Amino acid sequence: MTPTFTERSAGTARRLAVADDLAAALADDVAGRDAAGSAPASEIALLKESGLLGLLVPEERGGAGEPWSTVLEAVRILARADASAAMLLGYHHLHLWRLSHYDNPALAERAQRGTTGEGWFWGGASNPRDPGLVLSPHEDGFLVRGRKGFATGAQVADRIVVSGTVEGGTGSAAQGAAETGGKVMVVVDGRADGVRHADDWNALGVRRSASGSVEFDGARVPADWVVGRVPSSEESAAPYQSLVVPGFQIVFVHLYVGIAQGALAAAAGYTRTKSRPWTGSGVESAAQDPYILEAYGDLAAQTAAADALAERARTAFDRAVGRGAELTPDERGETALAISTAKVVAQRAVLDVTTRIYDLMGARATGSGAGFDRYWRDARTHTLHDPIAYKLREVGDHALNGTLPKPGPYS
Amino acid sequence: MTPTFTERSAGTARRLAVADDLAAALADDVAGRDAAGSAPASEIALLKESGLLGLLVPEERGGAGEPWSTVLEAVRILARADASAAMLLGYHHLHLWRLSHYDNPALAERAQRGTTGEGWFWGGASNPRDPGLVLSPHEDGFLVRGRKGFATGAQVADRIVVSGTVEGGTGSAAQGAAETGGKVMVVVDGRADGVRHADDWNALGVRRSASGSVEFDGARVPADWVVGRVPSSEESAAPYQSLVVPGFQIVFVHLYVGIAQGALAAAAGYTRTKSRPWTGSGVESAAQDPYILEAYGDLAAQTAAADALAERARTAFDRAVGRGAELTPDERGETALAISTAKVVAQRAVLDVTTRIYDLMGARATGSGAGFDRYWRDARTHTLHDPIAYKLREVGDHALNGTLPKPGPYS
Amino acid sequence: MTPTFTERSAGTARRLAVADDLAAALADDVAGRDAAGSAPASEIALLKESGLLGLLVPEERGGAGEPWSTVLEAVRILARADASAAMLLGYHHLHLWRLSHYDNPALAERAQRGTTGEGWFWGGASNPRDPGLVLSPHEDGFLVRGRKGFATGAQVADRIVVSGTVEGGTGSAAQGAAETGGKVMVVVDGRADGVRHADDWNALGVRRSASGSVEFDGARVPADWVVGRVPSSEESAAPYQSLVVPGFQIVFVHLYVGIAQGALAAAAGYTRTKSRPWTGSGVESAAQDPYILEAYGDLAAQTAAADALAERARTAFDRAVGRGAELTPDERGETALAISTAKVVAQRAVLDVTTRIYDLMGARATGSGAGFDRYWRDARTHTLHDPIAYKLREVGDHALNGTLPKPGPYS
Amino acid sequence: MTPTFTERSAGTARRLAVADDLAAALADDVAGRDAAGSAPASEIALLKESGLLGLLVPEERGGAGEPWSTVLEAVRILARADASAAMLLGYHHLHLWRLSHYDNPALAERAQRGTTGEGWFWGGASNPRDPGLVLSPHEDGFLVRGRKGFATGAQVADRIVVSGTVEGGTGSAAQGAAETGGKVMVVVDGRADGVRHADDWNALGVRRSASGSVEFDGARVPADWVVGRVPSSEESAAPYQSLVVPGFQIVFVHLYVGIAQGALAAAAGYTRTKSRPWTGSGVESAAQDPYILEAYGDLAAQTAAADALAERARTAFDRAVGRGAELTPDERGETALAISTAKVVAQRAVLDVTTRIYDLMGARATGSGAGFDRYWRDARTHTLHDPIAYKLREVGDHALNGTLPKPGPYS
Repeated sequence: MTPTFTERSAGTARRLAVADDLAAALADDVAGRDAAGSAPASEIALLKESGLLGLLVPEERGGAGEPWSTVLEAVRILARADASAAMLLGYHHLHLWRLSHYDNPALAERAQRGTTGEGWFWGGASNPRDPGLVLSPHEDGFLVRGRKGFATGAQVADRIVVSGTVEGGTGSAAQGAAETGGKVMVVVDGRADGVRHADDWNALGVRRSASGSVEFDGARVPADWVVGRVPSSEESAAPYQSLVVPGFQIVFVHLYVGIAQGALAAAAGYTRTKSRPWTGSGVESAAQDPYILEAYGDLAAQTAAADALAERARTAFDRAVGRGAELTPDERGETALAISTAKVVAQRAVLDVTTRIYDLMGARATGSGAGFDRYWRDARTHTLHDPIAYKLREVGDHALNGTLPKPGPYS
Repeated sequence: MTPTFTERSAGTARRLAVADDLAAALADDVAGRDAAGSAPASEIALLKESGLLGLLVPEERGGAGEPWSTVLEAVRILARADASAAMLLGYHHLHLWRLSHYDNPALAERAQRGTTGEGWFWGGASNPRDPGLVLSPHEDGFLVRGRKGFATGAQVADRIVVSGTVEGGTGSAAQGAAETGGKVMVVVDGRADGVRHADDWNALGVRRSASGSVEFDGARVPADWVVGRVPSSEESAAPYQSLVVPGFQIVFVHLYVGIAQGALAAAAGYTRTKSRPWTGSGVESAAQDPYILEAYGDLAAQTAAADALAERARTAFDRAVGRGAELTPDERGETALAISTAKVVAQRAVLDVTTRIYDLMGARATGSGAGFDRYWRDARTHTLHDPIAYKLREVGDHALNGTLPKPGPYS
Repeated sequence: MTPTFTERSAGTARRLAVADDLAAALADDVAGRDAAGSAPASEIALLKESGLLGLLVPEERGGAGEPWSTVLEAVRILARADASAAMLLGYHHLHLWRLSHYDNPALAERAQRGTTGEGWFWGGASNPRDPGLVLSPHEDGFLVRGRKGFATGAQVADRIVVSGTVEGGTGSAAQGAAETGGKVMVVVDGRADGVRHADDWNALGVRRSASGSVEFDGARVPADWVVGRVPSSEESAAPYQSLVVPGFQIVFVHLYVGIAQGALAAAAGYTRTKSRPWTGSGVESAAQDPYILEAYGDLAAQTAAADALAERARTAFDRAVGRGAELTPDERGETALAISTAKVVAQRAVLDVTTRIYDLMGARATGSGAGFDRYWRDARTHTLHDPIAYKLREVGDHALNGTLPKPGPYS
Repeated sequence: MTPTFTERSAGTARRLAVADDLAAALADDVAGRDAAGSAPASEIALLKESGLLGLLVPEERGGAGEPWSTVLEAVRILARADASAAMLLGYHHLHLWRLSHYDNPALAERAQRGTTGEGWFWGGASNPRDPGLVLSPHEDGFLVRGRKGFATGAQVADRIVVSGTVEGGTGSAAQGAAETGGKVMVVVDGRADGVRHADDWNALGVRRSASGSVEFDGARVPADWVVGRVPSSEESAAPYQSLVVPGFQIVFVHLYVGIAQGALAAAAGYTRTKSRPWTGSGVESAAQDPYILEAYGDLAAQTAAADALAERARTAFDRAVGRGAELTPDERGETALAISTAKVVAQRAVLDVTTRIYDLMGARATGSGAGFDRYWRDARTHTLHDPIAYKLREVGDHALNGTLPKPGPYS
């Protein structure tokens, strides 16, 4: 079922086979875990075991040295079976990767080695619509205070990436990363004192994504886990540094494509084996019904379109990442545009697929335990991350005015 | 919010005001009842109290003497708050009403008087896709045996309308309604020995509709509750008698319109009071966002279209019912066509509304307890009753070939 | 094919039968007239003969005394055959009717009697997006100067309704209707000196609607054809007076419904008689193809939805017109809302129908002379009158915020 | 505007630059040629000059030795400016290329050398829905008799590829290619006696594609232009030989993508420079209107989706062509599936784009001479080649049942 449009190296193929196996394992008990909600402990254990947490880490630091496109394909593959686990994998990589955008190579290396050597899982807490965190200088580091919602993965993370505004003096070198009032990124030990997880994620979908809120009540960050100063919104961040936002968006694209593919395959299995031909359809099996065939064609074509745009977007993203500090604003903009384009198509496809598969299976597929609603709940919940209308506007501003997306909290 | 396109008599207006009050009462705890699922005991109690169970019964028999259109408006009004309760109300009327299509006026009168006098709630068990029930002559009546799924309301019904195939001799007058091998309709006391409810309705939606299965293990039907012989599929039922099928379909239409209206109103309340304006939208409240306004316009227009077609369909249905035995096949067909047309538009509207309202509220509306998914689950579950593609085909066969829908289990 | 949902009086039925006959006559040579474009002389002659120009005029003044709903149905009926002629009929009535909104009953009566007695056809020139006309006092009336585009019907009109800004003194009583700088409505004789028609309407669609530009180069208006002062945009026009804008919009709705119905019926005739069954469809005629039937169902359902909303809108419009000076702003707003709702559904339906009928007929229906593109060209051209997005916004503002449409040049 | 997702060699880039230049030249007078209709003499002259007719011919035979993907990109590029010319280029290559699928390398070489050396343009006449042609043995070759419609390019072709049924004896070696009653493919000289072009292509769109009918009235085919025996429908053609049908379909995909891209770019130019901001939009230019931006985003995303699937399809097609006689039925099926998937998305995109661009430009864009309707007419006409419903069914049969498209006249 994995499309074969892209040529892959043997190493990459092997790693994606790991993702396939993990997806199969997750599929077995996804319904039960989804029903239970709360913290995804077993998923994190499986992710650690799988080696997929080190996909982006250079080989000399114990990782796989894969490009982002491999991570994204793994996200898509997991999402076919379990969107929450796929989300955790994608976000983990974003949090770890963003550290290397700062001028702090020692910290980035320690983070990577901790990931491959000690199996660290990374979370973050950076919802731009909540009030910011506060960093108070303490010894040669900081104490973190404040609360963030939608902190996907933080609850089960070994390390949490956050940024906050410095208050009070800035005596030490690390503290000096920012003036008072400036913003600094730091890494918090997930098990440090003063880190409290509300365990309050009980939403409609992606129920095992640990996306609840986290409170920092004076959690201590030593100097060597101070990442660096975050550019203010007036400063223009370097194009490469601001790639993390399109990075989130392209993870979303692969989540949606994966959910759509998973839902479609699951529905097809049901139609073929359990659905009954309709009274008066004149065919012997539901799988030969002309309208069911037509509708599968429609949903499959939409899903393929999303997948093809996802492939274009990850090709562009790999290229942009490969450019590093050389990345120009226009190249960054074109990459973001390819991702936004893929996102609107993927979002529409996944919502349409996850609602309409029921028409192709029939009333009994709504029965308790059939579990097809998980696809819709996961898709419907995550696609609310940021409004599709503004993504359409972004794509339209390029088509009409040639304007590329500008860096911001959602582009 | 009730549209004012239709002129209503004072009596009808008063009864619809009762429905409005009942809807308000149901809205209070619908979320909790939905979560609990199982048997809708409190809803049945409220329906009995409300007097809405006797809407169609002639005034001289203690009823309100209202036309079907009043029942349908009441179904739509309840569905805005609680689709399961609305469904129970609609199905109750269909089961009671269909008795009067048989040449058995005494039984029909007893049924109506039991409804208004003793507060009987009516259910049925007639899923055409299950194997049929068996009626064995016993004393001067029958014993009923067999199992039916999707028996909406039966579990909480005082009286259950079923039909089955006669096996063995047919000695008494009542038994003589059919030859061996013929089909007979009977009324079973819901509390009779040999009536067992599996309490197995645990579906995605309409969770309080008591739509599980019922098993009849020799339940006794006395002669005076034998309704009459059911025409075989080779015989053409009289047009009026076969109106019960469009009757079900028009109840569905009003369910869907009501759910869409309820979802849209609930979402609007949320957008106005809880949603935050989007970053970069340049407006001060979500309720002024250009894209949110446009989308509400789209969903409201679709819902209004469904409502206008529902009104046309119920006008046609009242007229057809009023024709009684004079109803011609063409008149029956035109009525069924108006209902099918309304249904495809209503079904599309309700699925679109219940999925897209989330885009207009934002991510926090997926939070536990917000409860907006009930609209989608109810709509998605009930709209699988019979495939929309075949309804479109029916409407198309008229537009293209002038062919009217033929009587059948779904038309 | 005329739907029978509405009960009509015998008189109304007779007048709509006249419209049906006229539609049949127009259908005969519509293709040739459309190809020729330019001035619709023969259509105006037929309209004059038909008596439909006097539909709204009271019986005591020689008219039919019909309500607006009859005009609108006539517009819909003509539009099935010839959208340009339908448009001319609708606009004629709007221009004549708007005169009665001013405090000038003598003029209104003269206009009505001229219509029924001398067969006047009325046009107008009021595109709000062009610069305004200038009225200079002359004798006891005015001279009109300026240019207006999209002046539907003016080229073939006996009388043209325009408004302009008064410049120079205002000596006479009629002139005194406005201060210098105020706006006054007047009636221009279509054959007066100084009225020049550019004959420049050569657009994609509604090619026989005479919608080109008109230039007034000192055309004389005597005192008794000065209608009255036009309220400035700061003044709130009386709700009744401002009904003319919804009046235009509801004419558009009926144009679109009529075009959709006409296109669908014409396509069905082609599919039944000329289309060949598709290779591998397994059916003997295109009219039995499952996908063709489904698509006709979709298009017919959309068209029926638009028609049902049009019916609601015209019921509301008749009621609003009947309220006259008593009409409240809220009643006016609710009427405008019903019309806007109908418009968005009708506009979508007509564009979808006129594009997709080709799929139901096959490639040969694009052949020269088949002429099915006229439906699309007419629909596509007229639906650009004002943007659908802003209509959706208007409908949404009510659904979300309870705000009714405010009087303006397009609402 | 050409997307940069694909890496191209310098030679390929140079050839596509030629296509870009030719597109620019065609754009200059496309409106006039479209209005005139009839035979595309000037287009054929330009195509011959451009060298694009030899793109697929091996370098050693004077061609460019490009893969099919280059031809397809050239088709897409031309279609942005002139769909008829793009269609002629695509069909030319299909007719020339299909000769090499027969076991007649000498003829294929002569055909290629004639193309590059003498500038032959190739047409065909093979509409499967018309009655077949008849080949009567004559000297050592055949005389061709019969009539074919939709014979794109034949009217302006130097050589026409046709197939017909042999009647009468089969004396010579060439004639012996088939038994009496068998089917043989031959090449007819476009200027031979007995070839008559009806010049009857006067359709809604692709008006300069020379798609009218051709009559063969005893046109002579010498032995060395007898291509070979055509497999009967009972025989399964070798997968490679039957690739010509997906070849046609992938040309269509690139036509549709090109038309959509051209329409969108032309509309954007108009919106930016000529459209006026809407009353009450609160923006200073139409190009900043929120709804116009959103709609451009929607149309651009759909077009990009079609383009991305077209790219996948041509990658698959190049690979399949490269496999030659080794191509397995499954590989052929997967290639056809990728093309069918791209086709349904491209067809929907181009119809939506070409209808909706008007909403983004406003009413004046329907004016005479604006010429935006050509995009819709071309798209609407060509997309009727074969019904989209059956393509959806084909795609759905794979998604649901794993069934690959079977070779046939449209797959």
